[in-house]
Amino acid sequence: MASLKVPAKVPLPSEDAEQLHKAFQGWGTDEAKIISILSHRNAAQRALIRKVYLEAYGEDLIVALRKEISGDFESCVTLWTIEPSERDALLAHEAVAKKVNSSYWIVMEIACTRSSDDLFKVRQAYHARYKKSLEEDVMDQAKGEFRKLLAPLLTAFRYEEGNEVDLSLAKSEAKILHDKIAAKAYGDDEIIRILSTRSKPQLNATLNQYNDAFGSSITKHLKDDPKDEYLKLLRAAIKCLTYPEKYFEKVLRLSMKGFGTDECSLTRVVVTRAEVDMQRIKEEYHRRNSVTLESAISGDTSGDYAAMLLALVGHGDA
Amino acid sequence: MASLKVPAKVPLPSEDAEQLHKAFQGWGTDEAKIISILSHRNAAQRALIRKVYLEAYGEDLIVALRKEISGDFESCVTLWTIEPSERDALLAHEAVAKKVNSSYWIVMEIACTRSSDDLFKVRQAYHARYKKSLEEDVMDQAKGEFRKLLAPLLTAFRYEEGNEVDLSLAKSEAKILHDKIAAKAYGDDEIIRILSTRSKPQLNATLNQYNDAFGSSITKHLKDDPKDEYLKLLRAAIKCLTYPEKYFEKVLRLSMKGFGTDECSLTRVVVTRAEVDMQRIKEEYHRRNSVTLESAISGDTSGDYAAMLLALVGHGDA
Repeated sequence: MASLKVPAKVPLPSEDAEQLHKAFQGWGTDEAKIISILSHRNAAQRALIRKVYLEAYGEDLIVALRKEISGDFESCVTLWTIEPSERDALLAHEAVAKKVNSSYWIVMEIACTRSSDDLFKVRQAYHARYKKSLEEDVMDQAKGEFRKLLAPLLTAFRYEEGNEVDLSLAKSEAKILHDKIAAKAYGDDEIIRILSTRSKPQLNATLNQYNDAFGSSITKHLKDDPKDEYLKLLRAAIKCLTYPEKYFEKVLRLSMKGFGTDECSLTRVVVTRAEVDMQRIKEEYHRRNSVTLESAISGDTSGDYAAMLLALVGHGDA
Repeated sequence: MASLKVPAKVPLPSEDAEQLHKAFQGWGTDEAKIISILSHRNAAQRALIRKVYLEAYGEDLIVALRKEISGDFESCVTLWTIEPSERDALLAHEAVAKKVNSSYWIVMEIACTRSSDDLFKVRQAYHARYKKSLEEDVMDQAKGEFRKLLAPLLTAFRYEEGNEVDLSLAKSEAKILHDKIAAKAYGDDEIIRILSTRSKPQLNATLNQYNDAFGSSITKHLKDDPKDEYLKLLRAAIKCLTYPEKYFEKVLRLSMKGFGTDECSLTRVVVTRAEVDMQRIKEEYHRRNSVTLESAISGDTSGDYAAMLLALVGHGDA
């Protein structure tokens, strides 16, 4: 369930565009108004506002926002405002451009937690924006086991109508997974085939069978070498595919752990999940951390950035 | 260029549906009428006829056709009549169900010769029809190098707007290909990455660079062991990606070679290319065989089946 709160009576896109334009006028910028409008509109509404704004004022709303606000607040507002598929394409492109191992995580996260249709829209948006294919850039950079895992996850188009599962298939594939893991063949074709092609309900059934038959979850068995980066990514992919709320709870937790904040991760999770499953993530967060996500955010961030994040996670009224 | 001939003045879909319904009435079936209508309508027109037929007579046109006609003629007419993406899904599914090595060829052919958007539509049609994903079934069956090659080809979404190429990339990737082939590493990740992710114009530039730098085409260098099934498939994939008319000419040639005819292949190529590039395939065929495709078809087939094929390859008037 989403955390996004949309008012019962939503102003016309032209009214929202006008109010935003007013918020940009004069000496200061009216950040509170920007937040009060954009944080309470869904993707379709935001897209309309952006369209109407361009028609009315001859400037892309995103460009206008970038001129007025800055820092983490700017990233949060602009990432939130653009279309989800364009946003994912942008996040993936930024990650790939960094050319560091941690960038694989964002690519994996997008590949494993979006619906089949949404993932395909990301690939279309990447074409439109970067004149290349997403998998082309990822495979150009990723090597070895990372490439072997990421490419099929990213190009997957899983069946996702209905929840029927084939239990005998789940049993046989649980055994395949177990055999490969027992042989420490963590990058084996069969592991990757099962994870990257089966529907999420089917995969869930397989991992339940694994648990039943072999007395432990597959992720426990994949902790052979806790420092192995590939194994970490593999475990995270499994979590994203079968229990995304838990995965996102952990990203949020780590982003605010200890001294300092990882604003990139915090912003990314909030803007990409507010319209999807942030309610469930908040529940997981509260259960795991004994504080609410709202109070954690209030403690770790401040100012307009904090206000925007809090509005997106459903704090206060629309 | 297509070989399909559509009359200048196309009857209304309701008129076509009525004429087809009449052709099915009484003792015999009016095969000539079926051919004269369906072989001269494009995909959008055929889809409309099918829709209108269902509304008017309460029966799917394909089901009605199957009751009236049979054999190779039936396969040819029904495969032609259904939507191209549904047809490809069906061809791929039939191929995979056969569980023989030759079935990989059809899957590769679909993966490498359809546009990015069309290939994705095939994957959507496969979901709708078989409640699974195409790559799920293919990867379930294909093993080893075959799987390694087919999975990324099938899930590819190549960039295909514009024809710009990066020549320095083409040079560096030509060298990668050459090094891997020199080391007989034919199933190497890098070969598969380049073939499965680069845009077709870029790939073409790379293979031209290969030719220039290493004095021979890549396919010649991939003839190490002429009996190796994987190498055959790899060469065919390269041909499909860069010179599809030549690939299809060869499939047609082999389908009518010697005694007997491979009707499956003949029908498949004619129905899948008539609306795409059959004119170019016919030119290639004529050049390579010194007889026209029409006369080869007339010599190898007969009756309604021959008439349907000939109409589709553009023989006679619409």
